[in-house]
Amino acid sequence: VIPASTSSHLRLGEGAEFDAIRSMLGEWGSRAAGIGDDGALLDVPAGERLVVSTDASIENVHFRREWLSAQQIGARAAAAALSDLAAMAATPLGLLLALGVPPDWQAELTELARGVGVAAERAGCAIVGGNIARSSALSLTFTVLGSTSQALHRAGAKAGDIVYVTGRLGGAGAALASLLAGRVPRPAHMERFVAPVPRLAESRWLVEHGVHAGIDLSDGLLADLGHLARASGVSVEIDLDRLPLVDDVDAAAAAVSGEEYELVVAAPRAARLRPEEFAKRFDLSLTEIGVVRDALDSPVIVVGARVDPARGHDHFS
Amino acid sequence: VIPASTSSHLRLGEGAEFDAIRSMLGEWGSRAAGIGDDGALLDVPAGERLVVSTDASIENVHFRREWLSAQQIGARAAAAALSDLAAMAATPLGLLLALGVPPDWQAELTELARGVGVAAERAGCAIVGGNIARSSALSLTFTVLGSTSQALHRAGAKAGDIVYVTGRLGGAGAALASLLAGRVPRPAHMERFVAPVPRLAESRWLVEHGVHAGIDLSDGLLADLGHLARASGVSVEIDLDRLPLVDDVDAAAAAVSGEEYELVVAAPRAARLRPEEFAKRFDLSLTEIGVVRDALDSPVIVVGARVDPARGHDHFS
Repeated sequence: VIPASTSSHLRLGEGAEFDAIRSMLGEWGSRAAGIGDDGALLDVPAGERLVVSTDASIENVHFRREWLSAQQIGARAAAAALSDLAAMAATPLGLLLALGVPPDWQAELTELARGVGVAAERAGCAIVGGNIARSSALSLTFTVLGSTSQALHRAGAKAGDIVYVTGRLGGAGAALASLLAGRVPRPAHMERFVAPVPRLAESRWLVEHGVHAGIDLSDGLLADLGHLARASGVSVEIDLDRLPLVDDVDAAAAAVSGEEYELVVAAPRAARLRPEEFAKRFDLSLTEIGVVRDALDSPVIVVGARVDPARGHDHFS
Repeated sequence: VIPASTSSHLRLGEGAEFDAIRSMLGEWGSRAAGIGDDGALLDVPAGERLVVSTDASIENVHFRREWLSAQQIGARAAAAALSDLAAMAATPLGLLLALGVPPDWQAELTELARGVGVAAERAGCAIVGGNIARSSALSLTFTVLGSTSQALHRAGAKAGDIVYVTGRLGGAGAALASLLAGRVPRPAHMERFVAPVPRLAESRWLVEHGVHAGIDLSDGLLADLGHLARASGVSVEIDLDRLPLVDDVDAAAAAVSGEEYELVVAAPRAARLRPEEFAKRFDLSLTEIGVVRDALDSPVIVVGARVDPARGHDHFS
């Protein structure tokens, strides 16, 4: 279900942009209701706080044109932006899209819009505004708005907590490595790269079941756990042997695979999250992968069979 | 006064970007309090609605590097974005800035941030989040958030209304024309181009005093009145002889001068807005420039001494 906005805004550009915008609005239909004013009007449910984040996807920085269709580029960029709402356990209220469009992308705007519309629809998110401007490289800058009565933060993890991750890791990174090497990625890996899913309902469930710190995986498990550990003033010990892996990826690669958009969270041992209940509800695994320690020299400590036994464990900072 | 946000987000990039962000945050200080999470948390005052808009300023599309200092570019782009909140009669809650930064702009980021900070401070607006990415041309994409209990819209003007404009027009367009021709603009014109002021308090005052339709002047008076007239289902008749002009600009040029960021509004005759009270309060003129008519062939009708008497009046569509 797409919440209706009473008003929204897509600034009109010149000439061909007019037609492009018309075709994008046609593509979005009721998902972008009420275009017309300088700003969109939205209501934050009583007792909830507004959550807002902005995220850009830029050609030749975040993707290459030959890797993805225009529709895939739109959907992937929107999903990545919406994942920031999942990281905060917020329910989407709406998104705004500022497009930078080079002349040779003009003809692809409808397809791009279709992808954005599909990702917004899946997340139950209205498209409430935007901006379009000429640019030398295609850029999609999303601002996502949501609301929550119980926000999830990076800070909040405590010594003794159990660390869990959703889904299976490594696919996005393996696909990207193949693409960069000029090889065709395995389909299962490419699927993870092309069509990430913001874990919105999952995040709210986790908070309701006792999770008190979390982050979405955009930079890779070890880097993002570093962010969480530093924000919480703790260290996190991760067991590489326990990482949930997609097929044909090893744990070391999965631990640094970026743009996964899964969630890694910390919950007190007493919370007793039940992974089997989570898996049944969301058709997605929830895996215990480590524990939170009092702050040590390194925010993230990696253990497991793949770590050189002479070193005992590896410090990652 | 800058409202505090409890949490916000500036996504960290690689290498030099880390340092750039640190220096930008240093520049912003308490205006950007609580950086750290994936999204910023904000509160919309009870009984008010959220207003949100996005706006991009792109090098060689909206400005040229040789025209403005980095600080001016930052301040001007932020003011232009904040003007959308003025157009809706909203009070700023916060802004997010997504930056696209080419390598040769890296050293200027602190100055750019200073300009954004100054414009945010003047508007009483916190900086609640952002994103930074490599780009081939400098781009600043702002999302501005505000709240209002009584939003101003483009729709709402009614036949018989009086049309008013704030400030004096023509400076921004005259400066732009000079710059494009390679001439040095007059200082008074350049000031209007470089440092537009979002009319935030003015807009709220106008709504409180009976204004029931309005828009900010970004595309030029005639074009923006066209937007207002079409949204309201009316025609607007403007008297060129009554336009408030900056020195050394004629009315025809002022009527198409873009990026003025003044407000043009419609109020019932019974509202009896008192321009002298407005001028005293805001040190800014409020000028009656026309009337609203039932919808005619053209949304905007221009009359006045400068219009060819053989034609009687000029239809602008």
